[in-house]
Order: sequence, then structure tokens, then C-alpha cells
Amino acid sequence: MKKELLYQGKAKHVYLTNEPNELILSYKDQATAFNGKKKEIVTGKGRFNNLISAKIFDYLTKENVPNHFIKSLNDTEQLVEQTSIIPLEVVVRNLATGSIVKRLGFKEKTVFQPALVELYYKNDALDDPIINDQHAFLLTHTTKEEIELIKGYALKINQLLRPYFEQIDVQLVDFKLEFGRNQNGEIILADEISPDTCRLWDLETEMSLDKDVFRQGTGDLLPVYQEILNRLGEIK
Amino acid sequence: MKKELLYQGKAKHVYLTNEPNELILSYKDQATAFNGKKKEIVTGKGRFNNLISAKIFDYLTKENVPNHFIKSLNDTEQLVEQTSIIPLEVVVRNLATGSIVKRLGFKEKTVFQPALVELYYKNDALDDPIINDQHAFLLTHTTKEEIELIKGYALKINQLLRPYFEQIDVQLVDFKLEFGRNQNGEIILADEISPDTCRLWDLETEMSLDKDVFRQGTGDLLPVYQEILNRLGEIK
Repeated sequence: MKKELLYQGKAKHVYLTNEPNELILSYKDQATAFNGKKKEIVTGKGRFNNLISAKIFDYLTKENVPNHFIKSLNDTEQLVEQTSIIPLEVVVRNLATGSIVKRLGFKEKTVFQPALVELYYKNDALDDPIINDQHAFLLTHTTKEEIELIKGYALKINQLLRPYFEQIDVQLVDFKLEFGRNQNGEIILADEISPDTCRLWDLETEMSLDKDVFRQGTGDLLPVYQEILNRLGEIK
Repeated sequence: MKKELLYQGKAKHVYLTNEPNELILSYKDQATAFNGKKKEIVTGKGRFNNLISAKIFDYLTKENVPNHFIKSLNDTEQLVEQTSIIPLEVVVRNLATGSIVKRLGFKEKTVFQPALVELYYKNDALDDPIINDQHAFLLTHTTKEEIELIKGYALKINQLLRPYFEQIDVQLVDFKLEFGRNQNGEIILADEISPDTCRLWDLETEMSLDKDVFRQGTGDLLPVYQEILNRLGEIK
């Protein structure tokens, strides 16, 4: 039922299926950072991202967040509703770290209350530049109301995921979301939510349990992703 | 009545006066571009900026835009109401050119209708990064409502300046504004409006009549600024 390759991403491939509205996301064992400038094969990573993202999307589905996830197919593949991806990276930050510290001079670990929502234009050639709302309408064929809807979803997802991770002693520092438009024109959550797309800190030690260990070369990615999957396994 | 130097900017000095709420802006003969990386003395430039900005602020005062301008004192100095400058560069764009073409991939001369408003964090050490509204509240001690007010003023000023320049055959392509908070806590237009802070194109030939001739090294700055001052002289 997996048919031709539709799109080849940095961390996953997307395949058509026999169903016109369904796609298969196939997670790859590739780790990338800095918009693809750092790249490495990490055998087993695809499985972790697939299983972790599936678990999180299942939770968001139960909490009535409209999203593309249908079901897991196997260790590295999941079935999703077909959407046309809106070329936005929607970043939600609860604590300042990473690019925002360097770019805007926020003190490391500044608390954002309410959470800070940022939009980036998903465009590799331009290096995913940060944009404001008005750029977003102009660049992504969305309306002002749709951008408000997307930002509202992002904040709601943050409200849901923070306590979800806290129960497994993980602090949700920041994360990136992508949204797509389905066949009915509705905007729904798409892509993945995993240690590739979130900063997850151990609540006690503040150790990174996410792609920062690869980005910064401070440790092995696999045991860290395994740790997140294990802890998520404790949630019923 | 000019007392000690309060602030030394790239294009002007600011002096205290005997009056506690009044400052003197003294325009310098220095041209800078690329956040000060390109710098040159251009004798006579300070006079042009002072006289052009005075003329424009006089017009905006007549049109009831709250601003800091009180009166011209001489060829290179003007008296203004003291404000505490809000560290924002508010950019209004009617046509795409310059940084927005390179940064976001807009086609040269894309028409923005309504005009595009962008906020930059005025911070030399960070190279004046672009920010969104939420960053603006966090970084500049303003409220959401004040940022809306500032953006509203910026659009109103654009509505006023476009026909003002059109009557002298000049197209207002884009411009940068700064706002300050006066002694009563009110936010008012401050700084200058001149060929240093606007892109002004001849309506017919689309020749630059602004700092781009210096920025891009395509011509002499003085005759171009003289041309703008001459044309403005035709407006009663």
C-alpha cells in the first residue's frame, strides 16, 4: 500500500498510499542540525522519533487538537492524513535558550509567561528566517485569522504538553510545530513532535534529553531518545 | 542655552538645554551605512537632514501627529521635546527593495497593499534584529496596546507622507521611524525623517534620492539631498 515517494525530507520520507487522502511518514535514521549543515546517520533514531511522535499525537488527539496522525504502521512508519504543509515553523518558547539568547540578547533561562510564539518562514534557501504575522500572510497564502488560529493552537498545545511532560519529570523548554491544510481546507497540526523538534530538559538536572546533544556534540543521541521513549511509556 | 552633550548618535548629537523638557538635536556631517560599518564625512549633509526633517515634522504637526519637534534653531540644529527613546526601529514598506528582498525572497518592487510594518530591536551590539510584536513588549518596556498604537501611527504617517511626496514627484518606497515617551508618558514620534531614513525614488525615473546612493556607492549624496530639499521647498 506504500506507493511512490512524494517528498524527501531531512528526517523523514513521505509516501503516497492507495488512499488519496492518506500518506505514510517514514522516519529516517538521519540526524541533521543547523539547517542541514551538520548531518549524521544514527541507526535507530527513526524508530524513536516515530514512536515518540505517535505517542504524543495520540495524546493530542484525545485532547481534541485537530491533527494529521492516523496510526502507527510499524517501528518507523506512521499513517497520516494528507495535508498541504503551510511553510511556517511555529516555535513556542517557555524558557529562553539557543538562538533567541544569541539573536535578541535574552538572558539564558528567562521565563516567558505567557509563552512566546515565533513564526519562521520554512525556506531552506533563505535559512528559515524569522518573520512577523504580516509577512506570514504574504508569504504563506494564509489569512490574518488563520495565523491567529495557528498561534492559538500552538499555545493550546503548549498548555497540554507542559503537564504531560512534567509528569515524567521533563521540562518542555521550547518546541517547533508545523501545520498543514487538509482536503477540506482545514488547518491541522502536522509533521512530528519529538526530541528532534522539542527542547526537553530533565526536570531535576536540566540535562538535555533532545537533539541539542547532537547539535552541540555533548553526548550520544540514542540513549537520550531512548530515555524519552521509556519515560513516555510510563504514561497510560 | 545648549548645555552638555546627552547622547552621541551616528548622524546627530543630542544636547541638554536650560529647559528640563527640551533637547537640541545637532545634525552631523557624517554618513553611515550597514550599522556603522561604512562611514564617511559629507560636509553639508547635516544641514540637509536638519532642514528636510524640520519641514516634514512641521507638516506632520499640522496633520495632528503627536511628535517631538518644536522648531528649527539654525541650519543644523533643532529644538525638540525630550523623550526617552523606545528602542524600536519601525519600518514601513510600500514596495519591496533592499533587505526584505534578500532576507525573505520578495520580488523587487512587490507592492505591499496595505503597507508592511516591521519592528526591529534598536541594539547596535545585536545588529538591530527584526522582531515580532511579542518580542517588542518583552524587550522595550511597552504594552501590547502601545505597540498597536505605534504601528497605527506608522501607518497613518505613511498615509500622510505618500501624497506629500507624490506632489513633488517622489515615491515613498519605505522609511524608518522612532518613537519616544515624553514626560507625561505619552508615546510620540521622535528622531528624524530624511533621506537618511527613507527610500525616496523619483516618480518618473525611479532614481534613488536618498542614502542608497551612499549605501550602494552609486552617486554623490549631496546633490541628491539638495534635490529633495529643493522639491520640498515647492510645497507651501
